[in-house]
Amino acid sequence: MKYCFGIDIGGTTVKMGLFQEDGELLDKWEIKTRTENQGEAILPDIAQAVKAKMAEKKLVKEQIIGLGMGLPAPVTEDGIVQNTANLGWGYKEVTRELEELLDGMKVIPGNDANVAALGEMWKGGGRGYDSIVMVTLGTGVGGGVILQGKILTGCKGAGGEIGHMKVNMDETRVCGCGNKGCLEQYASATGIVNMAKENVLEGSYLADKKVTAKAVFDGAKEGDTYCMKVVEKFGRYLGVALSNVAHVVDPEAFVIGGGVSAAGQILLDVVEKYYNENSMFALKNKSFHLAELGNDAGIYGAVRMVLFK
Amino acid sequence: MKYCFGIDIGGTTVKMGLFQEDGELLDKWEIKTRTENQGEAILPDIAQAVKAKMAEKKLVKEQIIGLGMGLPAPVTEDGIVQNTANLGWGYKEVTRELEELLDGMKVIPGNDANVAALGEMWKGGGRGYDSIVMVTLGTGVGGGVILQGKILTGCKGAGGEIGHMKVNMDETRVCGCGNKGCLEQYASATGIVNMAKENVLEGSYLADKKVTAKAVFDGAKEGDTYCMKVVEKFGRYLGVALSNVAHVVDPEAFVIGGGVSAAGQILLDVVEKYYNENSMFALKNKSFHLAELGNDAGIYGAVRMVLFK
Repeated sequence: MKYCFGIDIGGTTVKMGLFQEDGELLDKWEIKTRTENQGEAILPDIAQAVKAKMAEKKLVKEQIIGLGMGLPAPVTEDGIVQNTANLGWGYKEVTRELEELLDGMKVIPGNDANVAALGEMWKGGGRGYDSIVMVTLGTGVGGGVILQGKILTGCKGAGGEIGHMKVNMDETRVCGCGNKGCLEQYASATGIVNMAKENVLEGSYLADKKVTAKAVFDGAKEGDTYCMKVVEKFGRYLGVALSNVAHVVDPEAFVIGGGVSAAGQILLDVVEKYYNENSMFALKNKSFHLAELGNDAGIYGAVRMVLFK
Repeated sequence: MKYCFGIDIGGTTVKMGLFQEDGELLDKWEIKTRTENQGEAILPDIAQAVKAKMAEKKLVKEQIIGLGMGLPAPVTEDGIVQNTANLGWGYKEVTRELEELLDGMKVIPGNDANVAALGEMWKGGGRGYDSIVMVTLGTGVGGGVILQGKILTGCKGAGGEIGHMKVNMDETRVCGCGNKGCLEQYASATGIVNMAKENVLEGSYLADKKVTAKAVFDGAKEGDTYCMKVVEKFGRYLGVALSNVAHVVDPEAFVIGGGVSAAGQILLDVVEKYYNENSMFALKNKSFHLAELGNDAGIYGAVRMVLFK
């Protein structure tokens, strides 16, 4: 039996998994992401954790097929990162550096949202398809495109950056990316809260509550008119954006994940409605699914990159 | 030496080319597209023309690597067409039918805009790149996405249908596709004329002329304020749309073709300006080029599909 590691680097923790070559997860754990001093400790910490796990499980280098690794920044297929918002890294050759730290073990890097999309295709909400678009609705909006079983990386590693597609030409507020009118400003948890706060109606379900994305969807489920309006607005922006994505890559299915997707069927329904309303004939009636792997999508996707390279 | 045929089926004529296996065009000609009776004669006419050319050039079946064929509808990699606006076809298995008519010669089909994009990458404005997005600005707006030298076909053959991405959520006029606010409504020749006619100013360059896309760009080149405003509006819609495409597929370069692109540098400049204004950091500063092959892009792309399959 051979083995591989799946690694998902986040701004706070690095999630790690040890897998068999048949895709079975044997062990998972986390280490802290040490971002101080331009994140210089992150890759050495990962290398040390991998070696410690190999010692614990009595594995030798020849038994390890490789390491797949998702990270929160655009990264090219060669493992070049230009800049990261959360890790402290500027320009960094992640594949070369980590392979050196691991005495030549093979490392395959990917953008975290793209890698999570691959994981969901393999073992989650996108099972049974080989071309999907995944969108992750959390504090921000991440995206990943999988075509014929492979991540669409793009030439600068920015493939699948769906959260920063422009969906509103008239927006005046600035997105975290510096532009205006990005999907993230309406479809993230933060975006939903901002839309809901714009004009809370007297007597609305939200009037006496902390306004959260969950509260907005809960209100809509109870039939509150104002919350339903906010959900429609959310669904229209996301449905149109996914329709635009489909006009470019024509996937088999969409998978929606992240904290906001806990709203469930009501969210799928409203997105699907606006998706179909805005799509040309050949693109109507795609499948929409909720993500299933939660925080494990990254380590599964990372390992899949290694197993099906 | 071996040979192949490049075929580009349009609503009025079928363009055909005979190529050497090294990509050199030996001969090109056209036949009429007979769309009557659900277009039943189109494929037999093509087969007959191919056989006649082989007889003329004294070629036998064993010397023909295959036929590449672009057609004006979404088509899957298996050669399934669901419907065509211009050919009279409903559901049709084009690959199977044409291969039978040609006694088993290999046929590779593609959507015409996608095939033209491949041709431009190979021998035209996208030479030197292997991942490009091409947009064709004619009566309508066509698009094609080439990633790592291959057409992005999509699961229903609707990959690269950029003309029907929604760029205006507030549009009330209906596009040819049945939706509202499609890129085609602003970036096609027809769209530019419609925008220009909305509110022609007294004393504008256009006041005493037939309003055409060319006249609008000519006026802008002469510094006419109104024409410049229309060109800015065109550039903003197209620049934002191409930026949105880049957030999905992150290509190396864009190629702009079709009749409208005859406007030249002024068009590239305005599109590039709005592209950069609306793109996230990693996606700024892509190359923009004019298409170079004109009506031959289709036969070149068709042959490239056969040669690099």
